[in-house]
Amino acid sequence: MYSLTVRDHFMIAHSFRGATFGPAQRLHGATYVVDATFRRRELDEDGVVLDIGRASDQLRAILSEFNYRNLDDESTFAGRNTTTEVLAHEIFGRLIHAIHEGRLGEAARGVASLCVTLHESHVAWASYEDDL
Amino acid sequence: MYSLTVRDHFMIAHSFRGATFGPAQRLHGATYVVDATFRRRELDEDGVVLDIGRASDQLRAILSEFNYRNLDDESTFAGRNTTTEVLAHEIFGRLIHAIHEGRLGEAARGVASLCVTLHESHVAWASYEDDL
Amino acid sequence: MYSLTVRDHFMIAHSFRGATFGPAQRLHGATYVVDATFRRRELDEDGVVLDIGRASDQLRAILSEFNYRNLDDESTFAGRNTTTEVLAHEIFGRLIHAIHEGRLGEAARGVASLCVTLHESHVAWASYEDDL
Amino acid sequence: MYSLTVRDHFMIAHSFRGATFGPAQRLHGATYVVDATFRRRELDEDGVVLDIGRASDQLRAILSEFNYRNLDDESTFAGRNTTTEVLAHEIFGRLIHAIHEGRLGEAARGVASLCVTLHESHVAWASYEDDL
Amino acid sequence: MYSLTVRDHFMIAHSFRGATFGPAQRLHGATYVVDATFRRRELDEDGVVLDIGRASDQLRAILSEFNYRNLDDESTFAGRNTTTEVLAHEIFGRLIHAIHEGRLGEAARGVASLCVTLHESHVAWASYEDDL
Amino acid sequence: MYSLTVRDHFMIAHSFRGATFGPAQRLHGATYVVDATFRRRELDEDGVVLDIGRASDQLRAILSEFNYRNLDDESTFAGRNTTTEVLAHEIFGRLIHAIHEGRLGEAARGVASLCVTLHESHVAWASYEDDL
Repeated sequence: MYSLTVRDHFMIAHSFRGATFGPAQRLHGATYVVDATFRRRELDEDGVVLDIGRASDQLRAILSEFNYRNLDDESTFAGRNTTTEVLAHEIFGRLIHAIHEGRLGEAARGVASLCVTLHESHVAWASYEDDL
Repeated sequence: MYSLTVRDHFMIAHSFRGATFGPAQRLHGATYVVDATFRRRELDEDGVVLDIGRASDQLRAILSEFNYRNLDDESTFAGRNTTTEVLAHEIFGRLIHAIHEGRLGEAARGVASLCVTLHESHVAWASYEDDL
Repeated sequence: MYSLTVRDHFMIAHSFRGATFGPAQRLHGATYVVDATFRRRELDEDGVVLDIGRASDQLRAILSEFNYRNLDDESTFAGRNTTTEVLAHEIFGRLIHAIHEGRLGEAARGVASLCVTLHESHVAWASYEDDL
Repeated sequence: MYSLTVRDHFMIAHSFRGATFGPAQRLHGATYVVDATFRRRELDEDGVVLDIGRASDQLRAILSEFNYRNLDDESTFAGRNTTTEVLAHEIFGRLIHAIHEGRLGEAARGVASLCVTLHESHVAWASYEDDL
Repeated sequence: MYSLTVRDHFMIAHSFRGATFGPAQRLHGATYVVDATFRRRELDEDGVVLDIGRASDQLRAILSEFNYRNLDDESTFAGRNTTTEVLAHEIFGRLIHAIHEGRLGEAARGVASLCVTLHESHVAWASYEDDL
Repeated sequence: MYSLTVRDHFMIAHSFRGATFGPAQRLHGATYVVDATFRRRELDEDGVVLDIGRASDQLRAILSEFNYRNLDDESTFAGRNTTTEVLAHEIFGRLIHAIHEGRLGEAARGVASLCVTLHESHVAWASYEDDL
């Protein structure tokens, strides 16, 4: 199995509901450094998992929809905590949608699985991963 | 599949038995930077794999049992080499035990698998991973 | 010249005023990974720049005053943009104050200079540095 | 499952064929930081996945065959793009060959799977992984 | 003294002349991860060393002049080895020129010193630093 | 001012004397990831601060004198705590000695200053720096 990973980041405000979160129930924020890993059994005719330029561009486009925003105001997440895990899942879904729409190129349709990891600090990160 | 990882470290002395280890048969030591990755199919009602605060606290508690010690004197490892691999397995076991005892919270009982990685330098690391 | 650095982090919400900031004028947030570097010409009798345990504890105490907060609501920063540079300067000042109050131990009074660096992502960081 | 990873690097020139590659069709180059991860169900009698010294030496020996070269001139890759993915696969194959020849020691024959990751920058990496 | 650093990268081919370089006399290449650190005594009215967006854009524009090229063919470096040190100096000069031309904004004219660091691998880097 | 940095590591056991050190008074150990930074005003005729191959080799040779040892048994450190700071100073001294003996090449005699940094974990490091 081959994989290709690209990295980018975004910066948001949010708050959490639930006693579990302690002081993180207050409005605060985070920088998320995001790794998107595309896995595929065979390479395309160019010898790549997919076009790394398109992958970087689409990841950036998706992150820009959240970047410099207060996620508490985003209807996408209404009624949900925007935990690192939930955000990884949301970005995963949007990258899958971009693949299905052909925005990552024809080769990307051959991607077998995708893993999205969000690093919230130097000591904590979360990911969502699934087959396509 | 979701995952959540927390990082901490500990510093120990030890020596190895076996010609394979060459100069590492002498008493020496290591800093281990430890990543504990908890995997789970569904998030809990808070939208997390488990309570990251508890995960960090329990990892620290487990590492503190080894921290600043000479592992050659620890009965836990009597007759065994405390290689990076063996230590990863031991910490894995203790985290599983903490989950079973409820020390990582009720949600943590839903964890499907765990991976413990120990970085012994910038150029070498080892891990132990298994389903629960 | 000797130096000792300890690292920790905090997570906040804020917004910026000024056309220069573009979309960062909206309420957003950041994780800041903070490095505090203490420099000193001679080591103390223990052979250290200062007590690393106290340095880590005091850095954490200072960061906890900002952690999980919306800096737009903090009177400390009223009328100022809480840029990475401004935050580095503020934390610098609080660490100097802690040294003067003896909270980093007697040896720390011999510190010649201090540098505080805040990493806001994997591609950007800022610092404030001065002699004591 | 246990794993052991060793890291090294090599520096090469190359060019790509195919409009997808845009300016990377020109002769350029890369530093590849290489991680070789060996996985195994049980440890050997020394308590390791395999001899880390041998693993490091063999990885270095394999990378030295490419290091400081123009891959466009290497017959190994004739007619193929030497993408990060293709190079990960080639190094994977050579490490497997080294295992089969016994160059990583007898214990290494018990390795269940291998993953080779090449980091081409701080924001992109690719890997090839398979069972033995 | 305040500082602000931005990071980017470029990928080139080149060769070195001189027996000192051993196998690096052959045509090979490198990824350079570049850190540009701008230092300034006082912040501007926005509370920053300079506009980070402009700094990132100008660094990228400068690196793009070398990116995906064989530096042996670049007249800029005719008769010189394009070592990491020489490249750091060249990028330093081009950033200074961009500051003087106002491409980093008016505030950037207040920059007191600049340091450009090029990481050629995980185990080696070089820099050039000077006052303006 | 130019600089060149090379990185390597070593792994040792030791203990500290003094109540300040708390549990670190017990025999324990550390991995030190070491950065040696050589600074020089002008490059040599090859366009480098010094021969990076020699610098790496000499750093490795110096670290090998401590690697896989219990520093409590080393006469070099008799009566002293082998803190990260003290070790940085010792390695600094040995690199200066190597420069004076010509082991880093003739060009290295032009080095203006040297900084040695030892990373003891992902959250703490210390250095010693001085002019030659």
